[in-house]
Amino acid sequence: MERADKDLAFMLRYENVAWYSDGEVRILDRRIYPAKTEFVRCASYEDVIFALRDMVTQSTGPYTAAGAAMALAAFQCRDKTKEKQLEFLTKASQDIANARPTTVKRMALITEECLCAAKKAIEEEKDVSAAINSRLTELNNIRYNKVYAMAKYLCCKIPKSGGVMTQCFGETIVGQMCRVLKETGKEDVRVFCPETRPYFQGARLTATVCRDMGLDVTVITDNMPACVMKKENVSVFTSAADAICMDGSVINKIGTYQIAIAARYHGIPYYVTGAPDRMHVSARDVQIEQRDPEFSLQAMGVRTAASGVKGYYPAFDVTPPELVCGVVTDRGIFDPVSLETYFLPDDKPELVI
Amino acid sequence: MERADKDLAFMLRYENVAWYSDGEVRILDRRIYPAKTEFVRCASYEDVIFALRDMVTQSTGPYTAAGAAMALAAFQCRDKTKEKQLEFLTKASQDIANARPTTVKRMALITEECLCAAKKAIEEEKDVSAAINSRLTELNNIRYNKVYAMAKYLCCKIPKSGGVMTQCFGETIVGQMCRVLKETGKEDVRVFCPETRPYFQGARLTATVCRDMGLDVTVITDNMPACVMKKENVSVFTSAADAICMDGSVINKIGTYQIAIAARYHGIPYYVTGAPDRMHVSARDVQIEQRDPEFSLQAMGVRTAASGVKGYYPAFDVTPPELVCGVVTDRGIFDPVSLETYFLPDDKPELVI
Repeated sequence: MERADKDLAFMLRYENVAWYSDGEVRILDRRIYPAKTEFVRCASYEDVIFALRDMVTQSTGPYTAAGAAMALAAFQCRDKTKEKQLEFLTKASQDIANARPTTVKRMALITEECLCAAKKAIEEEKDVSAAINSRLTELNNIRYNKVYAMAKYLCCKIPKSGGVMTQCFGETIVGQMCRVLKETGKEDVRVFCPETRPYFQGARLTATVCRDMGLDVTVITDNMPACVMKKENVSVFTSAADAICMDGSVINKIGTYQIAIAARYHGIPYYVTGAPDRMHVSARDVQIEQRDPEFSLQAMGVRTAASGVKGYYPAFDVTPPELVCGVVTDRGIFDPVSLETYFLPDDKPELVI
Repeated sequence: MERADKDLAFMLRYENVAWYSDGEVRILDRRIYPAKTEFVRCASYEDVIFALRDMVTQSTGPYTAAGAAMALAAFQCRDKTKEKQLEFLTKASQDIANARPTTVKRMALITEECLCAAKKAIEEEKDVSAAINSRLTELNNIRYNKVYAMAKYLCCKIPKSGGVMTQCFGETIVGQMCRVLKETGKEDVRVFCPETRPYFQGARLTATVCRDMGLDVTVITDNMPACVMKKENVSVFTSAADAICMDGSVINKIGTYQIAIAARYHGIPYYVTGAPDRMHVSARDVQIEQRDPEFSLQAMGVRTAASGVKGYYPAFDVTPPELVCGVVTDRGIFDPVSLETYFLPDDKPELVI
């Protein structure tokens, strides 16, 4: 995917998890990253759907891949009539949105944006794939600017020679936080990344981004945050969120709640990054997904416990607003108990790419 | 090693990590347990020393192995003159005590007890290995009775249909706690074992003991304790300790501090098991050992983080007395701020076998 902001090229490598070019989509294989940097190559949008179901990418990766898949679909039907192209792309848009059952609505926001751009290009007899890529770049830059603004508000809370503790992998905000730290003369800030079992996103993804951005980064196991807070001059605990509820509750990867408790005990503020989500009024509305408990009984594919022992794997936990010091958004830092003030009259549902 | 209390045979399997019989010492290889149950077989006391240095067993395992090694040494020199036997065993006692630099003094308590029993047997022309084994059994039974008493006090704090959270592997107390729970009609109590990174003692050892004792046991990753406390009816958090300082501070495997903070937040009491240690006045006297930081960057032998990322591995952390609800000893449960009252006038340094 072509990017408008060339200066971001280095950083984008870590988020540019999927893109379309020259008749194929490439998706960074996060199942093996960072041990190996390999890309799954898809010659059809159906291949992309298969890759998404096969968990080649996670988090916001599927949204990026969905956009790229639409550009590929346009390439696949380029020699058809206008009507057949539209028909093909409409079906592709629905198929791709349905790739994973839990993300259909948000995924459809992307594929429909792409379909819109495609319709206009078909009418004007322009290169449809290029038009879709161009629209994706626009949307992506809007999002990047928002996350950059968010990173600037967050970094105001991190002193020059302080320490930041993260949790799981916050995607774009991680690279943007590193960028702003360097831009503001805070390149000596140390980052501590809890490894985030059972999937090790902290160790595998967050730490790699911070290293590549040139920061001093330490991976700790998930039983160490409290000890590190006591000994290593941690100034701020921060995480992204799967959802920030309107009552200020934060739904995020399992472990966030425990680190937030440890932070409170040590008087360290917890800042969550992201926009509040009107689709979630309170944490009571949220059914926490229980994943395959057996997954917690292995590490990096090696079994840890004996047979006959039970596992446990709630995908997320809920951090109550009393433990949240502030919600860091593109429009400033909000108190978790007054999130309604974030919204402007013309706000539309958020696109995630 | 022959055991006086035959009823304990089943339970002892899990702690009987090393024993002497018929001219050899066998040591359970904890480096691969429970994936495989294999024993390292030693034909000389020097082989036992090598096995100890090679980390075949940990925690109290080396003390058990040291006693067994003395019985083996007696077998090795059985055909020598009385004087040569004494000379050989005196040297063995010193060599074995020095197997690991950090445990010389406590290890010497064991080997000297064995040497004492050997001297008497040599004088009386009895089987020296048998005499040593017999003395070890006596000492072991004393310790078992103490830990059994401790388990009874602990289990008073666990309601019939409650839940217990553990940390790392508490050795004998784990099996004894399970035994008392069953004896007192509390066999439905659920046990939650945090896996205890980076070495997985909770997943590998504690959970296996609880399973084999017939309890309902669930392994959780180290970022889950707070979430489990909130959702799964945990009544008590309990751990053993590497040292209980006289000021009530608990030095134990990394992660204990964080779980104790989570327990306090949820109003769940934390009970530490073990005797207070007069050799440790306060946590300020204790230098926390920093182990090889690279070890935290792998799991079950598989690398988790990219190169260029730092690791961190404090072996222990310190839980302050304010987070400790009670110190569970063989003489009752003591308030962490009045541990001097535990001691009786004729108390001697504790033997660990």
